[in-house]
Amino acid sequence: MPHKKIINLKRAIALLGSTGSMGTQALKVIDQFPDLFDVELLSAYSNADLLIQQAQKYKPNTVVIIDDNEYLKVKSGLEKEDCKVFSGLSSLVDCMTMGSIDMVLSCIVGIAGLAPVYAAIENEIPVALANKETLVVAGELMMQKALEKRVPIIPVDSEHSAIFQCLVGEAGNAVEKIILTASGGPFRGMNIAELEKVTSKQALNHPNWTMGNKITIDSATLMNKGLEVIEAKWLFDINLDKIEVIVHPQSIIHSLVQFVDGSVKAQLGLPDMKMPIQYALTFPTRLYSEFPRFSFLDYPAFTFEKPDLESFPCLALAYQASKAGGNKPCVLNAANEVAVAKFLNGKIKFTEIPKIIETALEKIPFSTPKTIENYLETDHETRKLLNNKY
Amino acid sequence: MPHKKIINLKRAIALLGSTGSMGTQALKVIDQFPDLFDVELLSAYSNADLLIQQAQKYKPNTVVIIDDNEYLKVKSGLEKEDCKVFSGLSSLVDCMTMGSIDMVLSCIVGIAGLAPVYAAIENEIPVALANKETLVVAGELMMQKALEKRVPIIPVDSEHSAIFQCLVGEAGNAVEKIILTASGGPFRGMNIAELEKVTSKQALNHPNWTMGNKITIDSATLMNKGLEVIEAKWLFDINLDKIEVIVHPQSIIHSLVQFVDGSVKAQLGLPDMKMPIQYALTFPTRLYSEFPRFSFLDYPAFTFEKPDLESFPCLALAYQASKAGGNKPCVLNAANEVAVAKFLNGKIKFTEIPKIIETALEKIPFSTPKTIENYLETDHETRKLLNNKY
Repeated sequence: MPHKKIINLKRAIALLGSTGSMGTQALKVIDQFPDLFDVELLSAYSNADLLIQQAQKYKPNTVVIIDDNEYLKVKSGLEKEDCKVFSGLSSLVDCMTMGSIDMVLSCIVGIAGLAPVYAAIENEIPVALANKETLVVAGELMMQKALEKRVPIIPVDSEHSAIFQCLVGEAGNAVEKIILTASGGPFRGMNIAELEKVTSKQALNHPNWTMGNKITIDSATLMNKGLEVIEAKWLFDINLDKIEVIVHPQSIIHSLVQFVDGSVKAQLGLPDMKMPIQYALTFPTRLYSEFPRFSFLDYPAFTFEKPDLESFPCLALAYQASKAGGNKPCVLNAANEVAVAKFLNGKIKFTEIPKIIETALEKIPFSTPKTIENYLETDHETRKLLNNKY
Repeated sequence: MPHKKIINLKRAIALLGSTGSMGTQALKVIDQFPDLFDVELLSAYSNADLLIQQAQKYKPNTVVIIDDNEYLKVKSGLEKEDCKVFSGLSSLVDCMTMGSIDMVLSCIVGIAGLAPVYAAIENEIPVALANKETLVVAGELMMQKALEKRVPIIPVDSEHSAIFQCLVGEAGNAVEKIILTASGGPFRGMNIAELEKVTSKQALNHPNWTMGNKITIDSATLMNKGLEVIEAKWLFDINLDKIEVIVHPQSIIHSLVQFVDGSVKAQLGLPDMKMPIQYALTFPTRLYSEFPRFSFLDYPAFTFEKPDLESFPCLALAYQASKAGGNKPCVLNAANEVAVAKFLNGKIKFTEIPKIIETALEKIPFSTPKTIENYLETDHETRKLLNNKY
């Protein structure tokens, strides 16, 4: 790679959610380009031990542990480092004003990601977004602010990265349809009676992708794809009825865009999150990566089928919530988080997940949130309803 | 579509080879946008009747019939039209100076396409290129002139159009590999003993594409893919060892590009030449097209396999000729044209096609042509050798 290009790309990264599945994969990407990326900030929810190790290796200017109970542990673990240590979500939000961050990579899982990403946008910091909830819950607010501040939001989800890559150079050319691919998860082909009996252990055994627990269950219910539909709607400013889902069990085609001339573009690759992470961090430049390459000889057949909305109603619920708008996608997201946690704890059956979400969508009154706080209120209200109920 | 965009795109087209398979499909594309395209010139080799009909419909300023024997027929057929009529290839070359052509779409089949396309480039007219031989035979000369004159060469072949579409917006990002897809043709899976017996009728029955006879036989021998490899080398300025061929019998993925970060982009669609023709004519804008859309529900499986170079040695011969360089690709092309014609006339067996080409590559001495005339000399020499020999 030309040396000059690397120098021009030099970026100070704030990595939010550094100890989770996406965060640790992001650091592997950063490891490939030691001269290119400075890790300026690391944050984690509660994994103090790993956060300390990461800070010792990457020498960030600032470290934030969200869980206040872990503050002293992190503080003392890093006392020999030249590194500021803070705790709490509001500290992380405040850090977005520090002025030395070139890009925020948000790998936070769940609604906790909203406030720091919004703060990043307000402070005109480009965002590489691996946190689905940010756009699922508050897409309108986020995209309006991003437009106002002219801040690029670069998707890290493999599907949205695929679409983003297909749209490069196509400015002004109308999109007829976005086709999100779905692996179908570990229970593809099962009927409801079979799904009644599946365990969380089975659900966590995803055929293609290595991901965190929450998203792996979402992948098994197809809610993951539903959340991605909502995310795509905001990210690419496209009507819901132009977003389709097709099940592609091999997960090689990461998604597709159909233009008005009928031409379809797709992005493909091995199912490895490091590729879209790297693309987001180096966009619009592509740098040489050492990660394994896709070969057709390893994948002699790609197959495609319609998603089974009877066995997996979560996908339809997501369309429904997004169509309703307002606080409904926030209700959907919160109810799903509660239901997935209960399933992981063995409290409910797999097939109860969509039922809980449906109940929440019915019971929580419609509203039109205007601020992050409004969304958090809906989120809180939904969790309260469901925790009282189950 | 916004009206303004259409007005900005208004283009006067010279359609070379208007009566062949590609030419008639090009006119169907033009039919979709009567306000957008003016047909400024039509040319055909010898199909006077169809050329007259086309000229009556599209009202070109100029018509050229290459075959002098058909001149009087075309002239009298168009006497009521306000239309100049010329005959002969040199007249067509001269027409490239007329100054009123915004774009040349060359659908000429065979080496006859070289001189008019070269003249178009010299006269700074953008070229939409459906004529493979232009770059296969004289790629270096053509691309040097195109660079010197800053004339865009936009491919119309579905494979090269796919690659071109995947490269849009990727300027400066290094390509690791180009993967050309091949249908495998009607004889995919056959061994040499089986291929000994196939007839031209069987060979003309292509599973996916509607094309002219010559190219359909080339598709059955895999020479078509070999010619495309050579074309891709020049068009995308890429080393031969970075161009791969994969057999994809469904012909939905039209080709792929792998970048240095490992990401792969593909262009897909129904096997319909009208799509890449339209893209070339309207590039960089995509306009709404009425042609049928691809649906995964109609194609639930894409399959891929390595090309069988033992049964289909033409592909390897093309790599070999391109690697040798100089006049060798010209020899390959001429020998292939001769061999295919003999096969279509029932004079030789299908399996003799590669043997004839191999003989020509061995017998015709290496040279480094510097002009179109030099290439035509090699072409003539090759045909003479083979016509004496068989």
